[in-house]
Amino acid sequence: MKIREEARAMKLAAPKLAASTQEQRNAALAAVAAALDAKREEIFAANHADMDAAELSGVSGAVMKRLKFDAGKLEDVIKGIHQLITLPDPLGRITLERELDEGLVLRRVTVPIGVIGVIFEARPDALVQISTLCIKSGNCAILKGGKETARTNRILFETIHTAAAEAGLPAECLLQAELHNEIDELLSCDKDVDLLIPRGSNAFVQYIMNNTKIPVMGHADGVCHIYVDQDADESIAIPVLLDAKTQYTAACNAVETILVHRGIAETFLPKLAAAFREAGIRLRGTEEAGGLMTGGDTAAPEAFEIMQEDEFHREYLELIASVRVVNGVEEAVEHINRFGSHHTDAIITDNDAAASYFMQMVDSAGVYRNCSTRFADGFRYGFGAEVGISTSKLHARGPVGLEGLVTYKYEITGAGHIVGDYASGRRQFHFRDL
Amino acid sequence: MKIREEARAMKLAAPKLAASTQEQRNAALAAVAAALDAKREEIFAANHADMDAAELSGVSGAVMKRLKFDAGKLEDVIKGIHQLITLPDPLGRITLERELDEGLVLRRVTVPIGVIGVIFEARPDALVQISTLCIKSGNCAILKGGKETARTNRILFETIHTAAAEAGLPAECLLQAELHNEIDELLSCDKDVDLLIPRGSNAFVQYIMNNTKIPVMGHADGVCHIYVDQDADESIAIPVLLDAKTQYTAACNAVETILVHRGIAETFLPKLAAAFREAGIRLRGTEEAGGLMTGGDTAAPEAFEIMQEDEFHREYLELIASVRVVNGVEEAVEHINRFGSHHTDAIITDNDAAASYFMQMVDSAGVYRNCSTRFADGFRYGFGAEVGISTSKLHARGPVGLEGLVTYKYEITGAGHIVGDYASGRRQFHFRDL
Repeated sequence: MKIREEARAMKLAAPKLAASTQEQRNAALAAVAAALDAKREEIFAANHADMDAAELSGVSGAVMKRLKFDAGKLEDVIKGIHQLITLPDPLGRITLERELDEGLVLRRVTVPIGVIGVIFEARPDALVQISTLCIKSGNCAILKGGKETARTNRILFETIHTAAAEAGLPAECLLQAELHNEIDELLSCDKDVDLLIPRGSNAFVQYIMNNTKIPVMGHADGVCHIYVDQDADESIAIPVLLDAKTQYTAACNAVETILVHRGIAETFLPKLAAAFREAGIRLRGTEEAGGLMTGGDTAAPEAFEIMQEDEFHREYLELIASVRVVNGVEEAVEHINRFGSHHTDAIITDNDAAASYFMQMVDSAGVYRNCSTRFADGFRYGFGAEVGISTSKLHARGPVGLEGLVTYKYEITGAGHIVGDYASGRRQFHFRDL
Repeated sequence: MKIREEARAMKLAAPKLAASTQEQRNAALAAVAAALDAKREEIFAANHADMDAAELSGVSGAVMKRLKFDAGKLEDVIKGIHQLITLPDPLGRITLERELDEGLVLRRVTVPIGVIGVIFEARPDALVQISTLCIKSGNCAILKGGKETARTNRILFETIHTAAAEAGLPAECLLQAELHNEIDELLSCDKDVDLLIPRGSNAFVQYIMNNTKIPVMGHADGVCHIYVDQDADESIAIPVLLDAKTQYTAACNAVETILVHRGIAETFLPKLAAAFREAGIRLRGTEEAGGLMTGGDTAAPEAFEIMQEDEFHREYLELIASVRVVNGVEEAVEHINRFGSHHTDAIITDNDAAASYFMQMVDSAGVYRNCSTRFADGFRYGFGAEVGISTSKLHARGPVGLEGLVTYKYEITGAGHIVGDYASGRRQFHFRDL
């Protein structure tokens, strides 16, 4: 069947999944966890085949680590599923209950979004996380994973899908897209797909955003900043900057630009330069920052590269950092709101007024004080897992877990109430929250 | 200045408005209410000029009523502003507070969306409602109202803008677009405008949705249904249907399609036909419905028009209704999810099981039992006012009041916490909600 027809069938089945009880969805999750464990050898064999093919085609070591799905990763995802089971049901929560008038009651009730398309990188554990988050939240999901782990994806998907359907969920609730050209078909299903969550490179996410009428949740780039204030504790600043830059350079929440208060630049920047060079980080930035970081040794271009202002928009995802000296927290905020991507930005300071100004005025999904930008992650926020990180301001912002996968509907029950009675003044609303 | 440049300036000023206190925003609202009252004669004079011009150009009586802004409407909007002042601050609410680890605290705090563009029909009271909702929620707003009330809009806008700025809000927080070609310019400001709320005809809203990268909140059409179940109380059904169809035919929440259970069709449809004909409502629908409503008198084409199935998608906004006989609540739900616009749909029944199935399975922003679809409205929900009604599933659904105009950001405060410590196992998260 074509993706378009399958999406249509999924849309029609979505209310059935939405109507399933918490017990049914949790039982399906338990069945999925047991099935993954039972199929472990087949899963590992498929992953070996993917890894061998990737190695032959010259995939880098860092990427190879992501493709790998071994006993440790299987244990992690199974643990994650059991954690998900213990989380409260995100559906059917009454978030507003109001008597509008005698016998006329309004309720706002959480419901699933419906049909979600997730397009993600070659990371088998992501497939498990995303599909189980969708089951828990009662959403139907169309999954398209990276081609480098096609064999692993297929066995994982089949295992999850079979276990969920046998546990009583509608068979249409999960669908795997395997061909790259199916992505364009998926983008055209705006009548049946309620939300797209693309993960991957900036260019890929931009492509999705520019080629569909379906709402897209996610982020194209992560240009994260750390501003080191005049009142920063240096013993905190250097380790936080090193962690934010080096702990996982390819992550969207890694820091790209470091802003330093002019009042401490002269003493702080040489120390930062030494620490970053030792960690193998290439430095770029304004002439002023370069002068302070190289001790004025302009004959050392390998030590610091002077760059143009508009390059502060750049996301490196590598051991490279941009550095700029600013007059204070106001200028830092201005720079971040202008050059940033509204993802996650941090201030290092012991000054409460500066911190509070920064956290209020920076227009990003995450604003941090005295810690690494790398904390921007659903697991680290205690959400159990995430389907992605959103830099959009609508619906869900930051790491998106279960709460971002639900919406609501308004229910009213009456006893023949008509609007004409209120328009004519015969009856009056009294709005009493219950 | 061009809209594009003004939107840029507004975007940069948005954090300042977002940082304003509740007291400042409420004081500005009080100043706005006082200024509107003080300028009443000028406002009425401008409105008289608009009404005279509209009458000359042959605008219909129903529309003329909407254009009018007299002492009664002024009193209503001033009362609305004072009500808005009493509502709790939607900003700065902490919706999640969690200790991730010793000294590392995550908070989710509500913040304004930022810059909102609202394009609305010629209704002067809408201009006041929308701009004051934006002030209360700390959002900058670009307002483009219908041209038929251009003079009224201008004096209302200037009065509101001057009062808000003099009360201390940033002058950039409100902007009026007056020329129709400025709409296209506004649609291109996707870097600076966070949300568009278009109100108006189906074609106009579709045009906006298809010609911008800015997220759009609203609805193109409102094909609302009422399903009369086998166990309906007839003494409720007829008045509710009449109210939903006739109380305000041009509204998006007026009913367009009536579905009737086959078990009662033979007795109920003739009564419905009589009541609707008396109210001047033209009837259309399936052959079966027509036979029952005309008593088989096919020689009375003026009494009932047989229509094609795909016409059930149609929104009439006039005294016309589509009628169909269905086998029961399952078929009613199927019809609604297929032909409806996910706006507001109702069931008339005394049967709890049928009602609960209907409310669970109908995939609409509003699902009602035993009352008129016309209740879908921010004022009737007790929201004070609304900026529009959303049929989108993301962010805000149904009537959109203050809550739909805010988003959130995540704040973390630490003491030099780095992710490396958690990755290596040196430290562990403990996730304690505060």
